[in-house]
Amino acid sequence: MTTQQAEFDVDTTVTPAGEGRYAAQLAPGWKVGGGLNGGYQLAVVGTAISTHLADKPDPVAISAYYLSAAEAGPATVDVEVKRAGGRMSTVAAELKQGEATRLTVLATYSDLDRFEGDVRTTATEPDLPPREECVGRADVPSYVLEMAPLMSRFDMRFPRDQAGWTTGQPSGRGRFQAWFRLEGEREPDPLSLLLVLDALPPVTFDLGVMGWAPTLELSAHVRAKPAPGWLKVQHRTRNLAGGMFEEDCEVWDSTGRLVAQSRQLALAPRPA
Amino acid sequence: MTTQQAEFDVDTTVTPAGEGRYAAQLAPGWKVGGGLNGGYQLAVVGTAISTHLADKPDPVAISAYYLSAAEAGPATVDVEVKRAGGRMSTVAAELKQGEATRLTVLATYSDLDRFEGDVRTTATEPDLPPREECVGRADVPSYVLEMAPLMSRFDMRFPRDQAGWTTGQPSGRGRFQAWFRLEGEREPDPLSLLLVLDALPPVTFDLGVMGWAPTLELSAHVRAKPAPGWLKVQHRTRNLAGGMFEEDCEVWDSTGRLVAQSRQLALAPRPA
Repeated sequence: MTTQQAEFDVDTTVTPAGEGRYAAQLAPGWKVGGGLNGGYQLAVVGTAISTHLADKPDPVAISAYYLSAAEAGPATVDVEVKRAGGRMSTVAAELKQGEATRLTVLATYSDLDRFEGDVRTTATEPDLPPREECVGRADVPSYVLEMAPLMSRFDMRFPRDQAGWTTGQPSGRGRFQAWFRLEGEREPDPLSLLLVLDALPPVTFDLGVMGWAPTLELSAHVRAKPAPGWLKVQHRTRNLAGGMFEEDCEVWDSTGRLVAQSRQLALAPRPA
Repeated sequence: MTTQQAEFDVDTTVTPAGEGRYAAQLAPGWKVGGGLNGGYQLAVVGTAISTHLADKPDPVAISAYYLSAAEAGPATVDVEVKRAGGRMSTVAAELKQGEATRLTVLATYSDLDRFEGDVRTTATEPDLPPREECVGRADVPSYVLEMAPLMSRFDMRFPRDQAGWTTGQPSGRGRFQAWFRLEGEREPDPLSLLLVLDALPPVTFDLGVMGWAPTLELSAHVRAKPAPGWLKVQHRTRNLAGGMFEEDCEVWDSTGRLVAQSRQLALAPRPA
């Protein structure tokens, strides 16, 4: 470990700017399609809320409604406490650039170390081949990388049989799984999971629908603090209808624990 | 059809009470455990938003954070438009009783008739036996019915092999499916689906954990207008950890179409 701050930490830095207000500088590296990645924006808002609540630093549940496309440059996050509880607090927050609201958020935060107890789970982690046998960024078509500078902010490794979209042969199942790690081996934590849940290409790539998919709404649950190391991420959709699809994401840590779940409703990209 | 209003419509009636404010009368019949059912509260808020937006009457996505237990009696819903779009509008809303906020909500509404297009789905409706072969309200233990007057507001029919909790023999799988219909054969619509998504007993019953489970957060997507007739509802959980569990719900209409999806994060009931 060096003392140099990881890119993710630099780019999600917030500084107090008045009562319940935090200033941020949205970084161009998180661009995808026509705007900045939704997961990145959520991580910026999530960091402001964490700073505001101090003794409840971890998102437990967070819901974001995306109102307009964010651009690189200055932004503010306003945080308003709706309920301050002993164990959990609930807030509303908004990310703004000038007069434009980018996303509006509700969230419940706590200290995840307080959540001990029984784990009863039927969810099992994805069974992925070793990373060196997987398809990585080098195999992603250049036109995809050009649309998504975002993809240079992390390392991702897809099992060959789930990377059909990189070779124009999507599976049509509406599912993919991947290894995931932030650049600079920045270790995962509850706030960076907010990015991870919406960082990979839309699962509609696996249906052969290329192009970015604007998120209308995304709700995330952070279920435990992630252990250091590579994450496993799974995206899945079951219902593309009326021009919209739901995308479920699950994130597993290096110990095989399910650490985050999300569901979003997104607009299907129009076929090129 | 008679001209008499169905119970659900009477109990979710809102009347304008000033700029962006609506008055409601929360009805005692929707009680469950220590408060009023969360789906019922969401339907009341959803009705106020629908009234407020007029030409965008249907919830597309709605996220609710539950802050305190609601009681029967007068309540207000405040609706604030965050973004008024051509096809969709996003609002914040709060349900209050006196000074106490019961739930705080973000939602995007539209007119679901506008969402035509391709349906590509791998989701398949539950395969349920005929209703007359199912377990209904008459088979539910009286102590459950006493905790949940709510259950007299609708007809529900569980396949015998998924109703183990009624006889003290839960399956342990964390899943159940049921036929569902509101009392008085009140036909489903987008607003009543908000109730349906959170009306059945918590899926933790199927894990043998009896007792009600307070919702922290629930996000719902209404994917299409439901056809008249009986609905099929499926509840599932995969991860009970740290005293919380996620509960996914899906609702299918009588034509076999997936019309609504939700996920909630709830506190696990403490074993009695």
